[in-house]
Amino acid sequence: MLQLSLNNDSSLPLVDQIVSGIRTHIDDRMLRAGMRLPPIRGFAEQHDISRFTVVEAYDRLVALGYVTSRRGSGFYVSSRSEAPNIEVRSGELERAFDNAGVMYQSLEDSADRLKVGVGWLPPEWMDAEGVRRNLRALSRRADLHPTSYGTALGYRPLREQLRTKLGDFGIAAQPDQILLTHGATQALDIIARSMIQPGDCVFVDDPGYWNLFANLRLYGANLIGVPRNANGPDPDAMEALLQEYRPKAFFTNSVLHNPTSGNLSPANAFRVLQLAEKHDFLIIEDDAYGDFHPGSTTRLAQLDQLNRVIYVGSFAKTLSADLRVGFLACNPDLRARLTDVKIVSAIANSEFAERMVYLMLTEGHYRKLIERVQGRLSEATDKTLHMLEKKGLKPQGEPKGGMFVWAEVPGIDDATRLASDASTQGIMMAPGSIFRPQQQPSPFLRFNVAYAQDKRLERYLGEAMPRFL
Amino acid sequence: MLQLSLNNDSSLPLVDQIVSGIRTHIDDRMLRAGMRLPPIRGFAEQHDISRFTVVEAYDRLVALGYVTSRRGSGFYVSSRSEAPNIEVRSGELERAFDNAGVMYQSLEDSADRLKVGVGWLPPEWMDAEGVRRNLRALSRRADLHPTSYGTALGYRPLREQLRTKLGDFGIAAQPDQILLTHGATQALDIIARSMIQPGDCVFVDDPGYWNLFANLRLYGANLIGVPRNANGPDPDAMEALLQEYRPKAFFTNSVLHNPTSGNLSPANAFRVLQLAEKHDFLIIEDDAYGDFHPGSTTRLAQLDQLNRVIYVGSFAKTLSADLRVGFLACNPDLRARLTDVKIVSAIANSEFAERMVYLMLTEGHYRKLIERVQGRLSEATDKTLHMLEKKGLKPQGEPKGGMFVWAEVPGIDDATRLASDASTQGIMMAPGSIFRPQQQPSPFLRFNVAYAQDKRLERYLGEAMPRFL
Repeated sequence: MLQLSLNNDSSLPLVDQIVSGIRTHIDDRMLRAGMRLPPIRGFAEQHDISRFTVVEAYDRLVALGYVTSRRGSGFYVSSRSEAPNIEVRSGELERAFDNAGVMYQSLEDSADRLKVGVGWLPPEWMDAEGVRRNLRALSRRADLHPTSYGTALGYRPLREQLRTKLGDFGIAAQPDQILLTHGATQALDIIARSMIQPGDCVFVDDPGYWNLFANLRLYGANLIGVPRNANGPDPDAMEALLQEYRPKAFFTNSVLHNPTSGNLSPANAFRVLQLAEKHDFLIIEDDAYGDFHPGSTTRLAQLDQLNRVIYVGSFAKTLSADLRVGFLACNPDLRARLTDVKIVSAIANSEFAERMVYLMLTEGHYRKLIERVQGRLSEATDKTLHMLEKKGLKPQGEPKGGMFVWAEVPGIDDATRLASDASTQGIMMAPGSIFRPQQQPSPFLRFNVAYAQDKRLERYLGEAMPRFL
Repeated sequence: MLQLSLNNDSSLPLVDQIVSGIRTHIDDRMLRAGMRLPPIRGFAEQHDISRFTVVEAYDRLVALGYVTSRRGSGFYVSSRSEAPNIEVRSGELERAFDNAGVMYQSLEDSADRLKVGVGWLPPEWMDAEGVRRNLRALSRRADLHPTSYGTALGYRPLREQLRTKLGDFGIAAQPDQILLTHGATQALDIIARSMIQPGDCVFVDDPGYWNLFANLRLYGANLIGVPRNANGPDPDAMEALLQEYRPKAFFTNSVLHNPTSGNLSPANAFRVLQLAEKHDFLIIEDDAYGDFHPGSTTRLAQLDQLNRVIYVGSFAKTLSADLRVGFLACNPDLRARLTDVKIVSAIANSEFAERMVYLMLTEGHYRKLIERVQGRLSEATDKTLHMLEKKGLKPQGEPKGGMFVWAEVPGIDDATRLASDASTQGIMMAPGSIFRPQQQPSPFLRFNVAYAQDKRLERYLGEAMPRFL
């Protein structure tokens, strides 16, 4: 029998408590597809609440796709195929903090919203003029083929350049081990697609990258979060999970981790790789933010040398998100297989865009650009930490570079409430629950330090925090 | 008991006959996942052949992913999850005519190969100068944001322009019903991904677009080919198949169909839509080649008005394959769902590329460009038909425009043999079997008329055809 602990004194309405409780049961697989929910009347009596409350909660679960109503028979947990997370479609608020919904809002929102929740830099921090200059330079190149398909692997000189870049990280990769992709997102997508069958277990960072979670879930993956500690994925927690689960892969973000900006330590890296070896799973190391790290740092691919680690990189955060150029590097067998998946799902990517990135990397300004941004980020991080502490939030760790501060709102179970409130005031925030594999409640918020300097945020927090404390 | 008819006198080696026979049984689902193949000894005795022949054939099937060897227990048909077509990895010849392999070769082959099998125009037929000019013009626009993510739906002015374009085809679509994609390939991919669960039945054209087949198969779709007649999909054949199958969707190509260059008639369109209504499946109408059709023609979306038809368009064949701009148009509910799938698998596409296409469409040269290409294609088609007939091939139908001639090699079961031979002579051909849902044998070849003018093809056919007749 389903037993929820409902709290009449909570600021969270009973309906929300029931919805969230049942969702958690379903996400945790305690309630499984096809199982019947308690009848409305029985549930109401058991919990001593109104039947209308139960009806409203069940209706919300139906709208969310978690539950199916069968006329005359009751309410049943939807099968996975009936309830992909992506189908959530009921009202703006639910949608707002759904995975795809957050990204949609980030991309589409009007310019006058303060997007302190996004995962990229403001345009004015980027080198738009450099992009324009190279667009013109490239348009005049006689060897440009602007109407033809690119190659399956991607523009070779860029792959050779990436070999050098990876070499600087201590990762040895031949150009033929490198596959260019439509942003890191396509890299993660074709990796997921090439290995995940519905029901497969996949380990992810908890907290971790929300859009990846949504993507893995679309392939039917059963996501298990590996808690992060200050030094990366917690190896003890991972070892304990491995008693219970047989993951096919572990998707992780080692350097300037999204959302905490933490970094992987050599000791954690070694133990994670040992566990991967022992339990035979692949590791996908997403390094989208790594270039912002000042100085040297540890990457799994550096220890493993692309044996069971697939390295994923991107230029979306540093050069241009619009060019959509990312890449992966892995062992040759995997590379061949992933290339086929790329071909059947996209044919090829834009060679023009790949050449643009090549020009930006080789004309010598890249290092200077990155160093300038690192300096600005460091300054903005200090200011943001100071401001958030002043407003009563508790930043976690002491980020060394990167664009995120991960801060707890004390005395709150789920910072989504604060983010919802902020949304009505024109401030788009990223609440911690979206970074959790099953969107479990979280008292954290992720702040983008490049946007957090805007005085509107400080004003809003000054006004709102007393209401939430 | 598995019974193959092997022929010692065939020019096809016995090993190939066994491999092909068992593959067909598996593809046709007469042999199913988990079923055991006959023991090597029994099979050899039954067919009166050497055990080594059987061992070699079984090993090839293992390498192809169709069969799994369990030590001490024998050979078993692989489950679908163990044998995605994409994993085919054994030797260049097998790979060469595998779906992804053909595309890989088309993209990567050296320039001196004559690629009469590709599905796009030679660069010199396209307006590279127009692309270069617009690249420069766009790089100077003050409102360009070359470092930021594009929007989730795609550049709005282009969607408004596409509304006009679709209006010219008699298809009414609001800009918000249109989603821009990374080529038509991404459009087809996110549609497939949003609806296909492993084991789902999907109808496709037979013959039809090979890369689509590979993509659908990656999602675990069970592909059922609907035979084409001279007027499009054969409604009688479709009706018969619907007695047996419950497809979720039908992917079809109505105008200048790839590979036959046939066109859909109004009568066939009406019956196909009736069947879709009665049996409740979606139709995805891929119109990648439609702009090359001179004059008016019938599209399913024109009759259905995007109710149960999703229309997919592309500029890869007309403006630039490298810009990777395609689109889909459908009803608003579907559009919202497909947008989410696009976000979680790609975030957004390049707004720069979308603006490039917008400029190319609106600066007024598009119509002129298309008309010039139509004229050249018409002339090239006539010459190709004449040349192929002279060499003893039998072109099917009388293509009205488009870039393909679909021609039979008389007296041959599988034109793959001819294509393999041509490959050794530096000519890349597209044999009919790759256009069939289960790569069944086919005596047809698809010729790209824009490449077929090259004298090397005529010389080769003059030399080779007598050997194959």
